[in-house]
Amino acid sequence: MFDLHSLELPVIQAPMAGGPSTPALAAAVARAGGMGFLAAGYKTADAVAQDIAELRGASAAPFGLNIFSPSQEGEAPADIVAAYAGTLAGDAERHGVSLGRPRFDDDAYDAKLEIALRERVAVVSFTFGCPSAETVATLHDHDIAVWVTVTSPAEGALAHDAGADALVAQGTEAGGHRAYFSDAGEHEEHGLLVLLRLLRALTALPLVATGGLMDGPGIAAALVAGADAAQLGSALLLTPEAGTSAPHRARLALPGPTRLTRAFSGRTARGIVNRFMEDHDADAPRAYPQVHHLTSPLRAAARAAGDAEAINLWAGQGHALAQARPAGELVRALAAEAAAARPAR
Amino acid sequence: MFDLHSLELPVIQAPMAGGPSTPALAAAVARAGGMGFLAAGYKTADAVAQDIAELRGASAAPFGLNIFSPSQEGEAPADIVAAYAGTLAGDAERHGVSLGRPRFDDDAYDAKLEIALRERVAVVSFTFGCPSAETVATLHDHDIAVWVTVTSPAEGALAHDAGADALVAQGTEAGGHRAYFSDAGEHEEHGLLVLLRLLRALTALPLVATGGLMDGPGIAAALVAGADAAQLGSALLLTPEAGTSAPHRARLALPGPTRLTRAFSGRTARGIVNRFMEDHDADAPRAYPQVHHLTSPLRAAARAAGDAEAINLWAGQGHALAQARPAGELVRALAAEAAAARPAR
Repeated sequence: MFDLHSLELPVIQAPMAGGPSTPALAAAVARAGGMGFLAAGYKTADAVAQDIAELRGASAAPFGLNIFSPSQEGEAPADIVAAYAGTLAGDAERHGVSLGRPRFDDDAYDAKLEIALRERVAVVSFTFGCPSAETVATLHDHDIAVWVTVTSPAEGALAHDAGADALVAQGTEAGGHRAYFSDAGEHEEHGLLVLLRLLRALTALPLVATGGLMDGPGIAAALVAGADAAQLGSALLLTPEAGTSAPHRARLALPGPTRLTRAFSGRTARGIVNRFMEDHDADAPRAYPQVHHLTSPLRAAARAAGDAEAINLWAGQGHALAQARPAGELVRALAAEAAAARPAR
Repeated sequence: MFDLHSLELPVIQAPMAGGPSTPALAAAVARAGGMGFLAAGYKTADAVAQDIAELRGASAAPFGLNIFSPSQEGEAPADIVAAYAGTLAGDAERHGVSLGRPRFDDDAYDAKLEIALRERVAVVSFTFGCPSAETVATLHDHDIAVWVTVTSPAEGALAHDAGADALVAQGTEAGGHRAYFSDAGEHEEHGLLVLLRLLRALTALPLVATGGLMDGPGIAAALVAGADAAQLGSALLLTPEAGTSAPHRARLALPGPTRLTRAFSGRTARGIVNRFMEDHDADAPRAYPQVHHLTSPLRAAARAAGDAEAINLWAGQGHALAQARPAGELVRALAAEAAAARPAR
């Protein structure tokens, strides 16, 4: 089974669903000595299979596949979603589109698991929840390592008990969706550094640190704090291999606050503050993935029009430190800076 | 003027107003090779002078004095404070006390500055705001180094421009009050690690890292991320030298979530979730220090009665990792662990 410590560099590309994660990005990171990841989220199972084939055509290195766990909260009431849709009518009109149908689904969980098993990817990581011990066992039977994304010691303990092979520790700094096992209730927003220390106190499992890691000293600090590897998301969004949209790229490079919001997807995620977020954050219900589907045509139209004020500008708190360089060159440079910041014994 | 790098150990005791910071704690940390701090907050100017005399009687080492900057927001309307007081009537009755008079004041800012100048303490650090360039110049004229606590790159830039000699970077992990220059408006809750990297990108000033630093690897990680020293608060709360109350000690050692709340003081602070917080968080207005004075007798009575459910259990996100050991022994052990986690070049 895949061993984190077999990587030449302790750098892992974060799976970023919705466009940024491409097979080309994963291949470039892998060729540089790090680990690439594919993001199954929002895609059809066929599209995931196609991504895997494309990546395997470009690199023989082991890679990971991230899968969204099905919602723990069940389907939000239709009237709540309809009320939110009502507040988006002006936006839809402005962009000349109809809102999407706010359907509830499990993002083809079983079909994506099937593909992972069939393709025997090296690692499956889970976000939004912990797989059952049975699912973990099945993956293990296929020689697939299971990583679970956690945001708290309590989630870390559950993942440990379910048989995870590694924990992806997501600090509050991270861009995109919070990986909470449930989006309901209150969440302590742990900073990455203390989260690593709290997880290390309860488990000896390998830890993958993610959230706000943008440069060599940041990566080195995560490793010193107990992580076995650093997972980079926003740091790679400006690379030419990433599928980041042009308006998203333009805003990432500028300083600017981020915020947690449910406005775009109905589930808590961190992005750069823009007009859509300001207008709709207060009204946005917990209703994932219905709100994701609702706003999807609107976001597609805004992206096509280059309008950064109406798209989900997912970004971690360190986004202003992102560099527009080829992914392989960037990963090698950051790993070298990290090694210099943390001399070998 | 005091130079951070003259410390034998890169460990600084955090000033913890309201009881925990004692001259004995500051002296013990200083004797161990770190730096002690006194907390001027809530005390009379005379009591601060007495603390300084007591600390100087126990240690000749340079030490810091933390002063609360006056409120940027001005006095909250009396009716808002009165409405909150109404919701506390049951608590007051239960503890057999009257609520305090909710007065607005500046915590004797000028008098405390006078004492710092007269006593020529090594460092004055500021919380809740940035001193004027004039105040910074006056302190410099007296050979006193000026540190400013910041929670964001924007605050770091202001402190840099005001002439600060070092920035205390307070990550969201930190216990007690958030050091925001203003408690009004929205705040991006930066994790410590990314905050250090963002501050390092904008200034070459020495950085003191604080928030969630509980052990050697955590300290080492902060140093690798660009900090010049680590400031420990919750990590020292269980030491015998700290003035931490018995019910506070009992809860610190247990795992348990923390939350940001204005329920106790009218200003945002992080503490362990308890009954008072659950009951009053939603109603608590932004009205500092009026709410602090309002709840003061109630908290004193609860503390005396050993009731942890009605006192402000200030604690950082890593509080469960706190160790009950003598402060000097603990500081030396943590510094040694940090050095082992971060081998010298």
